[in-house]
Amino acid sequence: MALERRSRGATPRVPESLTRPILVQKFGGTSLSTPARIKRAAKRVAASRRAGYDIVVVVSAMGDSTDHLLSLASQVAKEPTARELDLLLSTGEGVSAPLMSMALNELGVPAVSLLGFQAGIQTDQRHAKARIVGLTPGRIERELASGRVVVVAGFQGMGDEMEVTTLGRGGSDTTAVALAAALKAQACEIFTDVRGIYTADPRFVSNARLLPHIAYPEMLELASSGARVMHPRAVEIAEAYSMELHVRSSFHAGPGTIISSEAAIMEERNRVRGIAHEEHVARLSVVGVPDRPGIAAAVFAPLAEADIAADVIVQTASHEGVTDMSFTVSSADGRQAERIVQGVAKEIGARTVLAQNGIAKVSVIGSGIRGQPGVAATMFRTLADHGINIEMISTSEVRITCIIDAKRVKDAVAALHEAFKL
Amino acid sequence: MALERRSRGATPRVPESLTRPILVQKFGGTSLSTPARIKRAAKRVAASRRAGYDIVVVVSAMGDSTDHLLSLASQVAKEPTARELDLLLSTGEGVSAPLMSMALNELGVPAVSLLGFQAGIQTDQRHAKARIVGLTPGRIERELASGRVVVVAGFQGMGDEMEVTTLGRGGSDTTAVALAAALKAQACEIFTDVRGIYTADPRFVSNARLLPHIAYPEMLELASSGARVMHPRAVEIAEAYSMELHVRSSFHAGPGTIISSEAAIMEERNRVRGIAHEEHVARLSVVGVPDRPGIAAAVFAPLAEADIAADVIVQTASHEGVTDMSFTVSSADGRQAERIVQGVAKEIGARTVLAQNGIAKVSVIGSGIRGQPGVAATMFRTLADHGINIEMISTSEVRITCIIDAKRVKDAVAALHEAFKL
Repeated sequence: MALERRSRGATPRVPESLTRPILVQKFGGTSLSTPARIKRAAKRVAASRRAGYDIVVVVSAMGDSTDHLLSLASQVAKEPTARELDLLLSTGEGVSAPLMSMALNELGVPAVSLLGFQAGIQTDQRHAKARIVGLTPGRIERELASGRVVVVAGFQGMGDEMEVTTLGRGGSDTTAVALAAALKAQACEIFTDVRGIYTADPRFVSNARLLPHIAYPEMLELASSGARVMHPRAVEIAEAYSMELHVRSSFHAGPGTIISSEAAIMEERNRVRGIAHEEHVARLSVVGVPDRPGIAAAVFAPLAEADIAADVIVQTASHEGVTDMSFTVSSADGRQAERIVQGVAKEIGARTVLAQNGIAKVSVIGSGIRGQPGVAATMFRTLADHGINIEMISTSEVRITCIIDAKRVKDAVAALHEAFKL
Repeated sequence: MALERRSRGATPRVPESLTRPILVQKFGGTSLSTPARIKRAAKRVAASRRAGYDIVVVVSAMGDSTDHLLSLASQVAKEPTARELDLLLSTGEGVSAPLMSMALNELGVPAVSLLGFQAGIQTDQRHAKARIVGLTPGRIERELASGRVVVVAGFQGMGDEMEVTTLGRGGSDTTAVALAAALKAQACEIFTDVRGIYTADPRFVSNARLLPHIAYPEMLELASSGARVMHPRAVEIAEAYSMELHVRSSFHAGPGTIISSEAAIMEERNRVRGIAHEEHVARLSVVGVPDRPGIAAAVFAPLAEADIAADVIVQTASHEGVTDMSFTVSSADGRQAERIVQGVAKEIGARTVLAQNGIAKVSVIGSGIRGQPGVAATMFRTLADHGINIEMISTSEVRITCIIDAKRVKDAVAALHEAFKL
């Protein structure tokens, strides 16, 4: 919790006589979109270094370079393999990492950049969505010991046979948090293009408020529910290792948001902390399913095999031996999920499969709100008062989610933000 | 010599029952500058594969992507380290290799792309000008055995501690030839933006003629003397392993030029085969050097340490115990060479150092021409007839080089091409 004691926005000074603590600083693509921005980010790193930290910098690809690479791929092949796409996309961080290292050296800060395989980031073989399975940070530790800042290419790792893998969306966050945990860093700072975590999307709610603290489970639900500042996988790892995360702006000196264990922020329990939303959602309904054991597994096992995450799942009560089952997936997975489920529907003798796009999720998030029945009631009442129909509902320990028409999502977020006095 | 027997421009058909011979095909940056060109190159590879070859493709970076990367580097640092530049520049081939692999897969040709470290290309640690010190092509052989075309990122390798290195200018040629030698390939085809090796630069001499054959030593001198089609290091390796090279156009079906051992083209001995030139040359003269043993070493050892190649070297006869020494370097190395030599000049008590830019080399090349005194005489007479002053002369077994004013180099090449009836 050391970072909480520092004056807001400034990096604390560490006595030179002590062992230097390690700080991991991650910069997203927007923060590195031009050489000028890379130089600005390098200055922040240099300042933290002067304050007495050993620094590991994790970088994403510059700005829209990933889109450029994807466009090149689409021009040579209709369906490039995930294996070749990984090799191609990994060059994005292969560019930003040495540029950051050069910018640091130019400021007189000795630095060295390492690609994923050089940094010892071992993953499984699931191209495009690999998971980190091991970290051997010997090279990083040697470079730190010799006085260098180590710049690590985020988002990428090495599978068996020295295969280059990528960690999927938000993968650089995961790289940063995993390295922070492996190196027993004091904290992991996530520099991004927003000032921190807000009570709702500031583009939707003009008086959305910056949260100075948030607990891991709340952040996890926010991230899973569409607040794209942090990747959920990164939050999970941070929680598992009690690694404090600090989300802050690359462009402003403000305090940002500290993500830490719930105990640290007890006073915030039992109330709604924020409103999250996710616009790109598709719903699939399997209608007239014979109600017998194993049906849910028959539907969801092939989806899991295709790495498609079914989100909100609702099964209606059985009626005359048949039932309906509905669930949501991200729009991007919609077409593939529909194909798979249509195959399953035939096998299990379901009547038909319905697919619907243009729907959205809106969620209220807060530790302990499950124990507060008033929260759910207020949410449903508020949506009803605004004439917004609730199509599906799902809850967790720290979240209540309603599926609504995508056209009403902005109204819903604003109304809920108002209703819960955020 | 098998490739000589084939019909010109077509890839020979190999009987399916025999072991499939290996062909290495290298494509330069101009041949891969757009997705459309990558697809065109992939079609040539697919055709060779249908003809019965196992194929290893070596690719350079797309078009001007290296310049783009260098520009990014110059915007973040005045003097980026060679180590970080290597990592940055290696992403150029990191992009073109998977794109080529995707384009092949799209044509129904199973392919896999490998970066230098994955392909087992081991180098020394001399960043920006590394040399290949070992090749462990196990992964390539396994991929070939499983029926895939293997696309290897050229120009790059791996030094100690998994450091990414680059092989310097023309490095992809070197990658291709070294792989061809290690894999005991039948031949190595170099696809480029010219139709082959000419008797002189076609931009200077409109009736320059395409050479169907050329011997390694001639090609080596042509390459060293400024004919930039092949890198000299690649020619050296090809000669050492008797690996036949075939230089041909990516854009035309013509026969190209076969580079092989001298014995194969005996009928071409003892005559001038081509005129080469190099425009970007600087001359340094150390004036008034006390003439004693060890002086030349004192001058050239520190240059060698800085990896600067001194080219034409001339020392005048000693006069009253002092002598003058002149040599040429490439213009790019001129400033650094001047600084080094000025330091040395003080130590050895030389009077002064003179530096001159704006000079050029022009060379006549041909196996056995050293034994033909008429060749040198004709060269000097031709230049004199055109009022071109010869400032320095250097000869080898297969080459005569004159240093002249850069402004006259085009005239000199045209006049010599005419004089030797090429």
